[in-house]
Amino acid sequence: MSDLDFLFRPKTIAVIGASKDPTKRGYQSIRSLQEGGFTGTIFPVNPREKEILGLPVHAKTSEIDSEIDLALISTPASTVPGILEDCGKKGVRSAVVLSVGFGESGTNGRKLQEEVVRIAKERQIRIVGPNTSGIFNLHHHMNLVGIRNVRRGSIAILSQSGNLALSLITEMSVRSHLGVSAYVGVGNEADIRFHEYLNYFRDDPDTRVIVVFADGMKDGRKFLQVAKQTVEEKPIVLLRSGRSELGRKAARSHTGALAGLSAVSRTAFRRAGIITIERSDELLPAAEALNCQPPIRHNRVAILSDGGGHAALAADALAEQFVNLPELSDETTQKLRAIMPETTTIANPIDVAGATDSNPGVFADCAQVLLEDPSIDALLIIGLFGGYHIRFDESLKQLEEETSHRIGKLSKSLNKAVVIQSLYADQQPSPLRIAGSYEIPVHESIDLAAKCISVLEEYGHHLSTSHDRTDFTLNPEGKRRPEAEGIINMVLSQRRTNLLETEAKSILRVHGVQVADFQTAADEEEAVEMARDIGYPVVMKIVSPEILHKTEIGGVLLNVKNEDAVRDGYDLLVARARRHNPSAKIHGVVLSPQMPSGIEVVVGVTQDPQFGPVMMFGLGGIMVEVLKDVSFRVIPLSSYPAEMMLREIKSRAILDGVRGKPGCDREALIQLMVQVSDLAEAYPEMAEMDLNPIICYENGLSVVDARMVLREPAEAK
Amino acid sequence: MSDLDFLFRPKTIAVIGASKDPTKRGYQSIRSLQEGGFTGTIFPVNPREKEILGLPVHAKTSEIDSEIDLALISTPASTVPGILEDCGKKGVRSAVVLSVGFGESGTNGRKLQEEVVRIAKERQIRIVGPNTSGIFNLHHHMNLVGIRNVRRGSIAILSQSGNLALSLITEMSVRSHLGVSAYVGVGNEADIRFHEYLNYFRDDPDTRVIVVFADGMKDGRKFLQVAKQTVEEKPIVLLRSGRSELGRKAARSHTGALAGLSAVSRTAFRRAGIITIERSDELLPAAEALNCQPPIRHNRVAILSDGGGHAALAADALAEQFVNLPELSDETTQKLRAIMPETTTIANPIDVAGATDSNPGVFADCAQVLLEDPSIDALLIIGLFGGYHIRFDESLKQLEEETSHRIGKLSKSLNKAVVIQSLYADQQPSPLRIAGSYEIPVHESIDLAAKCISVLEEYGHHLSTSHDRTDFTLNPEGKRRPEAEGIINMVLSQRRTNLLETEAKSILRVHGVQVADFQTAADEEEAVEMARDIGYPVVMKIVSPEILHKTEIGGVLLNVKNEDAVRDGYDLLVARARRHNPSAKIHGVVLSPQMPSGIEVVVGVTQDPQFGPVMMFGLGGIMVEVLKDVSFRVIPLSSYPAEMMLREIKSRAILDGVRGKPGCDREALIQLMVQVSDLAEAYPEMAEMDLNPIICYENGLSVVDARMVLREPAEAK
Repeated sequence: MSDLDFLFRPKTIAVIGASKDPTKRGYQSIRSLQEGGFTGTIFPVNPREKEILGLPVHAKTSEIDSEIDLALISTPASTVPGILEDCGKKGVRSAVVLSVGFGESGTNGRKLQEEVVRIAKERQIRIVGPNTSGIFNLHHHMNLVGIRNVRRGSIAILSQSGNLALSLITEMSVRSHLGVSAYVGVGNEADIRFHEYLNYFRDDPDTRVIVVFADGMKDGRKFLQVAKQTVEEKPIVLLRSGRSELGRKAARSHTGALAGLSAVSRTAFRRAGIITIERSDELLPAAEALNCQPPIRHNRVAILSDGGGHAALAADALAEQFVNLPELSDETTQKLRAIMPETTTIANPIDVAGATDSNPGVFADCAQVLLEDPSIDALLIIGLFGGYHIRFDESLKQLEEETSHRIGKLSKSLNKAVVIQSLYADQQPSPLRIAGSYEIPVHESIDLAAKCISVLEEYGHHLSTSHDRTDFTLNPEGKRRPEAEGIINMVLSQRRTNLLETEAKSILRVHGVQVADFQTAADEEEAVEMARDIGYPVVMKIVSPEILHKTEIGGVLLNVKNEDAVRDGYDLLVARARRHNPSAKIHGVVLSPQMPSGIEVVVGVTQDPQFGPVMMFGLGGIMVEVLKDVSFRVIPLSSYPAEMMLREIKSRAILDGVRGKPGCDREALIQLMVQVSDLAEAYPEMAEMDLNPIICYENGLSVVDARMVLREPAEAK
Repeated sequence: MSDLDFLFRPKTIAVIGASKDPTKRGYQSIRSLQEGGFTGTIFPVNPREKEILGLPVHAKTSEIDSEIDLALISTPASTVPGILEDCGKKGVRSAVVLSVGFGESGTNGRKLQEEVVRIAKERQIRIVGPNTSGIFNLHHHMNLVGIRNVRRGSIAILSQSGNLALSLITEMSVRSHLGVSAYVGVGNEADIRFHEYLNYFRDDPDTRVIVVFADGMKDGRKFLQVAKQTVEEKPIVLLRSGRSELGRKAARSHTGALAGLSAVSRTAFRRAGIITIERSDELLPAAEALNCQPPIRHNRVAILSDGGGHAALAADALAEQFVNLPELSDETTQKLRAIMPETTTIANPIDVAGATDSNPGVFADCAQVLLEDPSIDALLIIGLFGGYHIRFDESLKQLEEETSHRIGKLSKSLNKAVVIQSLYADQQPSPLRIAGSYEIPVHESIDLAAKCISVLEEYGHHLSTSHDRTDFTLNPEGKRRPEAEGIINMVLSQRRTNLLETEAKSILRVHGVQVADFQTAADEEEAVEMARDIGYPVVMKIVSPEILHKTEIGGVLLNVKNEDAVRDGYDLLVARARRHNPSAKIHGVVLSPQMPSGIEVVVGVTQDPQFGPVMMFGLGGIMVEVLKDVSFRVIPLSSYPAEMMLREIKSRAILDGVRGKPGCDREALIQLMVQVSDLAEAYPEMAEMDLNPIICYENGLSVVDARMVLREPAEAK
């Protein structure tokens, strides 16, 4: 049994803080275990009671004469450390701490939480929460949350909000045939983290889809790693909150712990194959579609509708989700023409117009043609279907029911996704119930039906592309170079964290990055010699560990054209540096060739609080600084995600060359991005990198300036 | 009685194409009129029948011995002209033409439609359709559509899609207490246009909200004019389809007639005060909120929730709709603190956390504090409310019901908008039904509840701001200048439509626009003289009616620095022009000062197929050409909408000056935009204008190049 098996499949549960008061969790949990048919043994613990709900009560957990797999703790926060010590003595394997007043509530709470974690580690007790709404595993008849009448099924819920889970469960009971396998309220993630639960659900045979609600998480990178493996077996749908500043503020006061999901999370989740949802009302439809329908591996969808207005709205909704409605093949067009009235225009969206009014069976005829077409991967049916007998004549009901059976069987036998939108969906007429029995999602909303298609497409796309096989693991081994390590160690030995431009460029060069030539002159004469060597015009920059922002103090001279100018320039730079900081240690002046103009881009590396090192890419100048037009990827990245980063910026057209200017050498740029990714991976001690600008040409590129910042030695890992 | 009164409140209806076949519209319409309790007289018309549904049948309309207010025509397209002639003889006032096969289906159909329009005009019959699903007016017991069991109410539906109306009606019956006042399927808009129906509904006392579905319209400007007046009395909600290329394609094959709603429509609708919706599942919630709740005139909304996760999602949803959640006043914070447990953080969103679990009445206490605060304009309640008795204990039901009454009364007495989201909404428990009885919208979806708030805010904002009082009327009177008219007439007399740069600039100058100085030299000597007069450096450009794109043939010389260069330049420009087009008529060379650099912007005027003249604004260079970062407004515009155009572009920060560069003179730019708007209004013969670039400085600006194109004389109005 794994750690979490003791949690999800306990044989013995101690309920600490057991109570006779029906409004207390210490009463409700016992009742809910009993009502749910829990087959193990329940041990109420309370020093002041003898019997609760027919069970003998122990004064302390350590006094129980049995091994304890799981302790449920609902006593005040201040009592929790003592209780855990007592549990530890007993060898309790896991604990669900419902108590509040920990990390989410100020300094004292945080200290208390640290103590709890310390005890848990020492005593080897795995902890859910604190500040959790609880957990349940319906397939083990174990319910510690007290929500009643939850339908058993195959959706696992992993959530920071108990109410969100309650919403989903309530919505399921009203609107779908789905049920829940298990639920965890992750609470403050003090011990067990999101990714550990995810790992458990991946292996849980009762779970087909994992739903996650998060407004932050403690170890985002581990979550990505586990998610990436998990989605190969079952889909993950994540509802992301805290997208707006207001939402983040609200989320912070909720879980207390975390910074909220950063901007990079959306792209990171997508890369891990997680389906991210931003509207809570789309969560259940998305989970249902992924639970019931095959993924759409090629983005080729047909819409079959009985009205042009609805078809246009559905096409809009799909287009906004990047779902492709291909043109129909000649063969399929001919087959459809044979079914439909002569005057009908045959095109995708397929509008059967009036053809189905008196014979809804036409829907099945058309669906068959479309689903049998190997160049169509999925079908969205839009309009009145299922309610023709309501709209026109009761006599049509049987025909509609037969049609549903035919479409359902086609979907199953051809293993192609079908989603139905019907304006009669909420009335659940028999033809739509039949479609449901073939696991076809049925929605009243065009937008929700389209969303079902789009999540199936997104999941299928992830499964069928193999361009980006990262496992999100950072592996420095074999990537470090002794020369670069030497520079870093020297910098650290000088108690610096900011590398000189020359040091940063040397490290880049060691790793094969195309850096513009540079030489550091310690005096005027050397500068003149070097300039001659490099060739005029040159760029001159001051080199001093005390001067980080060279441009701001006038420490950069461009387009220096001759020997005299080099001499003057040297003196000027030194004078400016002295004026700025009389005690600055000046190493000299670095000289580089004045590079011809080209397309300026920026590549940077920063540390995300949840995901660790992240790469940023954008076009230099106003595009980054004013328009914030940048793309992000969690490091490491290979050439495919690097290419995607180039494609994601809004100003991407500029990379191809505009207004008569040449484009940029994409291959060289992608290679550089991969090199920088390797570099960030190789040196975890690096906190930030900024290659700005990089000048790109039709052939090749050149890093003109570079900045690197190391972590404070204390925080280096 | 107005034209449309005969349509919506007919005393007599001739049903042409009346039938005994229950599957035919000619049967269903009569039955539906009879079942609906139509109090006027129905005259079935069919040469082959004697009696239908108990009514005597006439062979022709002209044989009926009564005045006919309305004819319903459902016969094949080819018979319609003859029928209309017959109706004309009889003096029939209006006709609803259900028949298809007109403008929506090819050349023959279009011709037939033109004939129908001609007869209708001649005979003064107002026509709905053709290709319409019909009309009904439930307050007049007149239903020509045949949808049964439609609840009577206050929502008027004006739609290009019958199915969309059917969707809305079906959804209403399941999900709301709302009903419909009247419906029109506009069909091909061959005669009566969208704006005429809108006008009718504006004055219809039975209508409180007008819902419009359009994927195109024939006279968008008239629609804006009528809408602007209408929204002062009642809200208009418009579902916009054809946002994507795919959607437009689908829409085209549907209504046949139209180009689809252009990109400019969204901003034009908003300016007219129309609430535009893009998801069809948001249409009913939006209409319901506007029907039942007061508009939110100041954008200050509070969220009251019982869970942090839900609160964060609601805050995200509101933030994305630009709804503002202000900080709470000290007084309100103190009052809330007195109600809630000590540990609760008091901030907006207000999270009552566990405080309501045993006493949902806390919701009403908090709601009262918030609604009585004059700095809060509306309240969104989020979470479990209405279902505490389901979640916890049945005994809470009475308390919840009382809470609903209290909140309902507060909302009514204080006239502030309240919307409730409850995860129990779909189960319709009594506390939520009570809230509904106070006309409070109740939704299960957080996103739909947030949408209700946002449409109330959008409508309230429109009603409470008076910065943009356009009525969308183009009024050339008093704006034309004889000098400019002279230039236009001269150009037309030369059978040209493209104005020379010098002509365009002269017109701009006549209208007070700041144009860089320019003088046309007919020979080298003159050029030298003028350059001296203007001051070096100068810009030289070729002037020839045959050369429209001067830059492309090298017809522009920048930064010409002295007399020799002017002489060389003159010869060079003329030589290049000759090489390009040996027969080009060359007027000479225009000289202007070389303007110092500044922020380059573009102002243009184009003709929108639906709205007529439209202004475009953007930043010169890549921002417009590559990033398409532009804003639009329908002309005319005053300084307020011009300012909004500056604020709407993504690159707006550049206008303030970035990277140490000075900003642009916004006042001068706004003044120029208003002048250009006046100009477009003054000369309807102008098809296009393009002021590109305009160089803006900290003080003032200068139009450096300008292009104007007149309509072909035949199309000038």
